[in-house]
Amino acid sequence: MKRNVFFISDGTAITAETIGRTLLSQFESDDFEQTTIPFVRTLDKLSPVIELINRAAEEGLRPLVFSTLTDRNLSIKLKKSNSLVLDLFNVFINPLEAELGTHSTHIAGRTHGIIDKNIYDKRMEAMNFTLTHDDGASVQQLKNAQIILIGVSRSGKTPVCVFLAMQFGMRAANYPLTDDDIGSARLPKILHAHREKLYGLIIDPDRLQQIRQKRKADSTYASIRQCRNEIHDIEEMYQFERIPYLDVTDSSVEEIASKIIQDKGLKR
Amino acid sequence: MKRNVFFISDGTAITAETIGRTLLSQFESDDFEQTTIPFVRTLDKLSPVIELINRAAEEGLRPLVFSTLTDRNLSIKLKKSNSLVLDLFNVFINPLEAELGTHSTHIAGRTHGIIDKNIYDKRMEAMNFTLTHDDGASVQQLKNAQIILIGVSRSGKTPVCVFLAMQFGMRAANYPLTDDDIGSARLPKILHAHREKLYGLIIDPDRLQQIRQKRKADSTYASIRQCRNEIHDIEEMYQFERIPYLDVTDSSVEEIASKIIQDKGLKR
Repeated sequence: MKRNVFFISDGTAITAETIGRTLLSQFESDDFEQTTIPFVRTLDKLSPVIELINRAAEEGLRPLVFSTLTDRNLSIKLKKSNSLVLDLFNVFINPLEAELGTHSTHIAGRTHGIIDKNIYDKRMEAMNFTLTHDDGASVQQLKNAQIILIGVSRSGKTPVCVFLAMQFGMRAANYPLTDDDIGSARLPKILHAHREKLYGLIIDPDRLQQIRQKRKADSTYASIRQCRNEIHDIEEMYQFERIPYLDVTDSSVEEIASKIIQDKGLKR
Repeated sequence: MKRNVFFISDGTAITAETIGRTLLSQFESDDFEQTTIPFVRTLDKLSPVIELINRAAEEGLRPLVFSTLTDRNLSIKLKKSNSLVLDLFNVFINPLEAELGTHSTHIAGRTHGIIDKNIYDKRMEAMNFTLTHDDGASVQQLKNAQIILIGVSRSGKTPVCVFLAMQFGMRAANYPLTDDDIGSARLPKILHAHREKLYGLIIDPDRLQQIRQKRKADSTYASIRQCRNEIHDIEEMYQFERIPYLDVTDSSVEEIASKIIQDKGLKR
C-alpha cells in the first residue's frame, strides 16, 4: 500500500528533502509518494497543507511528514495532523538553547536564504569565476584559482568545479590536458607555478568510453583503446609529478568535491 | 569564550553542515569555531575525532557536535565524547522503524552519494545540457529544455539554471534578451513556441547597476539610467505577455530555483 511522504519547510525545503530522503533510503520500501511544499510561513499557508495531509491519511497509510518549520506555533499545529511528523528542527532547538543558555530567534527560511551576504557573494563570485572559463583556464585564471582540476576529456572536471563554487564558494578552475600533455607524461609548463593547487581526476576506462561514445559515437576519441591509454598515461603522470588524484567512477560530485577539500586541507 | 562546533558525517557532511549551521544561525552568538569532518566510517577514523573533540572541550566551552553518522555503534561511541552531540539521524530512525514496521539498513554515506543511478545520471545530463549553452540557448536547446529563464543581462539567470540542473536535475536553459527585444516590449519570435516554459527574472536597478559596474565600469551598459529602463521595459513585457516572473534582488539561488519550480507546478 502506498504511503505519502511530505517535505515541509518555511524556506526552500531542500534540507527537509535531503535529510528526509536519506532517512527513507535506509528502508527497503519503494512505495513512497513524495510531495515537497516550500515557503510555508503563515497559518494561511499551513492550513491547506494540513488538509492535504489529512486527506492522504484517509486514502492510504499514515503519511510521513519531514518538517523544518522554525516557527513553534506552526510546528505544533502541524503535529496535530494525522501523520508521523519528524520535526528536523525544533527537536534540536531545546537542547541547544539549554546548552547555549539563550533563546533562539526562530526566524524562518535561514538555511538556504542569504544568511550572510558576504558568504553568499563569495559563492556567486566563485560561480562566475568557474563558469567564465569553463572550457579551460587562462593564465590569469590559474593565478586566481584556489583549486585547479586536471584530467582527461570527459572525466567530470566541470560539474565538480561548479559544485565546489556553488556549495563551498571556492574559485575552482579546470585545465583540460591535451593528448600531447598526456603522452609526454609530464605536467604542462603552464601548470608548474600552480603545482600546489592541482588535483587530478581519473575514471574507469569503460565508463569513460561510455560517456565519450554519447558525445562522439564510434570515434577514435571514444574507443576503449584510446580511453585506456589516456587513463594509464595520466595516472602515471600524477604519480611521477606527485599530484594527488582520485578515481571518480563511483562517486557523486558532492563526494568528489568533499574529498578534494579534505585531501587539500582546505577550509570549508 | 570560544565554542568549538564539529560537523561529523560518514558521507560528505554537507547535510550535517547545512542543518547545523541553520540551527546555529538561530542564535545570536558569533563565536563558533567550526570544523567539518567527512567520511568517518570506521572506529579507526572516529577515534582521533573524539580525541579532537575532547581536547577542544578542555580548552574552551563544551563543544557542539552535529552528527549524521548512520552506524549505531559509531554514534554511541561519539556520544561518549565530552560534548553536546546532536544526532541528526538516529533520533529519527527509531520512530521511522516503528511506523514502517521494519528495520533500517544503516548504510553509510547515502545522502550525497549515488543512491539512485538513474537520478544521478539525470542530474549530470541536466548539468551538461545547461552548461553547454550557457551563453544563450539554441533553437534545439529551447526545444529540449524543461524551463527557460529570461531576463536582462546580469540578472542572475546562469547560476539559477545551474542550480536547477545540479540540485533538481532539470534541463534549464537561459535566453538573454537583447536591447531590441526589451525595447519592443514583445517576446522574441523564437520564444513563442516555448511560452509555457518561460520564466522571467527582474532585479532592483540599483543592484543591477552595481553588478554591471564590476563587469564594465562606467559604460552605458552599467549606467543606472540604462538599468532602470531595461528593468522597466522587461517588467512591462512580462506583464503584457503574461509570463510569470520574480524579483530576485534579495533571494538566494536556492530560493529562486525553489520558487520557480513551485510557480511552474513542476515536480521536484
